[in-house]
Amino acid sequence: MTITEPKGFRAAGVTAGLKASGRPDVALVVNEGPLDVAAAVFTANRCKANPVLWSEQVMADRRARAVVLNSGGANCYTGPQGFQATHASAELVAGKLGLGAIDVVVCSTGLIGEQLDRDKLDAGIENAVAALSAEGGAAAAEAIMTTDTRSKQTLRAGDGWSVAGMAKGAGMLAPALATMLVVLTTDAAVDAETADRALREATRVTFDRLDSDGCMSTNDTVLLMCSGASGVTPDSAAFATAVREACHDLAQQLMADAEGAEHDIAIDVVGAATEDDAVEVGRAIARSNLFKCAVFGGDPNWGRILAAVGTTNAVFEPHRLDVAFNGVWVCRGGEPGEAREKVDLSGRAVTVTVDLKAGAKSATIWTNDLTHAYVHENSAYST
Amino acid sequence: MTITEPKGFRAAGVTAGLKASGRPDVALVVNEGPLDVAAAVFTANRCKANPVLWSEQVMADRRARAVVLNSGGANCYTGPQGFQATHASAELVAGKLGLGAIDVVVCSTGLIGEQLDRDKLDAGIENAVAALSAEGGAAAAEAIMTTDTRSKQTLRAGDGWSVAGMAKGAGMLAPALATMLVVLTTDAAVDAETADRALREATRVTFDRLDSDGCMSTNDTVLLMCSGASGVTPDSAAFATAVREACHDLAQQLMADAEGAEHDIAIDVVGAATEDDAVEVGRAIARSNLFKCAVFGGDPNWGRILAAVGTTNAVFEPHRLDVAFNGVWVCRGGEPGEAREKVDLSGRAVTVTVDLKAGAKSATIWTNDLTHAYVHENSAYST
Repeated sequence: MTITEPKGFRAAGVTAGLKASGRPDVALVVNEGPLDVAAAVFTANRCKANPVLWSEQVMADRRARAVVLNSGGANCYTGPQGFQATHASAELVAGKLGLGAIDVVVCSTGLIGEQLDRDKLDAGIENAVAALSAEGGAAAAEAIMTTDTRSKQTLRAGDGWSVAGMAKGAGMLAPALATMLVVLTTDAAVDAETADRALREATRVTFDRLDSDGCMSTNDTVLLMCSGASGVTPDSAAFATAVREACHDLAQQLMADAEGAEHDIAIDVVGAATEDDAVEVGRAIARSNLFKCAVFGGDPNWGRILAAVGTTNAVFEPHRLDVAFNGVWVCRGGEPGEAREKVDLSGRAVTVTVDLKAGAKSATIWTNDLTHAYVHENSAYST
Repeated sequence: MTITEPKGFRAAGVTAGLKASGRPDVALVVNEGPLDVAAAVFTANRCKANPVLWSEQVMADRRARAVVLNSGGANCYTGPQGFQATHASAELVAGKLGLGAIDVVVCSTGLIGEQLDRDKLDAGIENAVAALSAEGGAAAAEAIMTTDTRSKQTLRAGDGWSVAGMAKGAGMLAPALATMLVVLTTDAAVDAETADRALREATRVTFDRLDSDGCMSTNDTVLLMCSGASGVTPDSAAFATAVREACHDLAQQLMADAEGAEHDIAIDVVGAATEDDAVEVGRAIARSNLFKCAVFGGDPNWGRILAAVGTTNAVFEPHRLDVAFNGVWVCRGGEPGEAREKVDLSGRAVTVTVDLKAGAKSATIWTNDLTHAYVHENSAYST
């Protein structure tokens, strides 16, 4: 289930020496066509890293032939010199593969505020080009890891076509704003409009609803490349479903590997007047440090949930709110409900359900608990 | 420097047994006039505790004769039974003092979702009434403490009049949304409009800019009672300044006693197009767990600051941003500036300066670092 499983792609992952650990740190994925349709979603942060500034330009025509990714340095807040490094990477890939640089997306992840080692990066890219193969997907997935403890890959098979993906990032919870990078490949023959719509909708309900620590990265990139090599044009709804399922699977893998986390928390907001209300409420809860500490402590503290709900503009009446932990309704009508002793938070998976009693809409936000390990890893990382 | 230093006030602090620790837990402050002018600011949380729901009604006419406060229970999310407990407290105080219940503000703090012990509370209130004295300010300040390690009091002397105050709460950073309760007294002869305007402006630039963990309490109350007993009507600007200085002093005491914190952080945002921009940027930084962990680790991680700035709607250009830690400009123009090794974060006080280069406005937001102790105290508190 690697990104080279869909037809028309080659990939590689090599060690350039950018990472102090000596682990693989340069990945390359090439779309050999016949199509070069692509779609991308980038971080909404206004202080973007250089590779994002470059790749936004690449994606303006919704076409891309290759993506080169490095770990071991985010190339963020590195000024014109950093932008030049990004541009040179694209030029180098393009020159080796006979493409235009403007068809090469660039992604970087790692520490911010430091220049990349251009010599090492260039050598790594040359080695990656030489190593390209139709079996290179797993190596590529490994080369984009930073603090991830395992590589993340997924595959959804359609009727004669497929969608595959790889991802890195420990939720958004990892040190130094550990960037989320996702590359999806498909051999379905879809047009740019279909690809773009499918990717945006998938991202909206998966990665955008994974809110490990509320910190938005400067480098986040989700890229979908479409080779058309299967010769099959799937029903657009089936295609969108496959892309969404692939993104959901990768998002769940990111959450499960979030640094320092001991609980994966699904916040189901139901009974909302609108989906936006449900998302706003879920996000407010996911960003409450007091709630996240309580889950770490095995404490079904519904009062902290109501307090977070109360900071939102969603439609609800405080005295009608219900809250459940793992199906036990510890709060009914804004007051104590079932005995909190019935709640068992010893497992890794925790589901919080909040019923706003204001409508029929719902949404789920995923997050993690706030732990000693989170504080440790994020205070000790860059020193 | 107690709240009974201004003329016209009596106060008491007694032990009712609401706290498991057996420490004082009921406070009473009475304004003996001749004026009964009062102003109050309450939590903006939509899920409010019962004492806030009651006290908002009390303050509708901007008059109050007394405030009764209890620690050992927030009386929050306790439904009609909890509201009845609040109302009965006001009735009891009023009956003993010959007032109307509608002139008695009620404040509570402690765990949420649990009913108060009415018998203990009633007995405590009766004892507090009996203990009222013109020297009772310090005892009252002690009785409202929860996880505070010391009581917080302040005094600002005018020309023949004064403003005093007491506060509890460990910033907004303490366990179980540890409420911030503040009572200010003054013997200045001011009208309701002057009192209200002074209190709102003071709160806006002091307590509202103390953002320890971004969690908004359900019980926060700031009350100013004006006895007029000095017979002096101060210049309204001088009065406003004294109220603001008293609030600032109390806010700084709250920050210094924030649970689990090892650093007090002042985030000075300068060069902003508007004051609102400066506040928005400061608050975004104060709410970045990654930034707060970095300060805990002694790491002047300006990249995490820029990433937080980038989530705001303030006017700025990313490539013009400057950031300093304790006066060392580690980021200049969105790139590495002075050597980070020059920054010494070993002291408790940390000043972060962010220059948006977009105008002449500024604002300061105060916060704390995110520490192991924060996680520990907020995960273990209610279990």
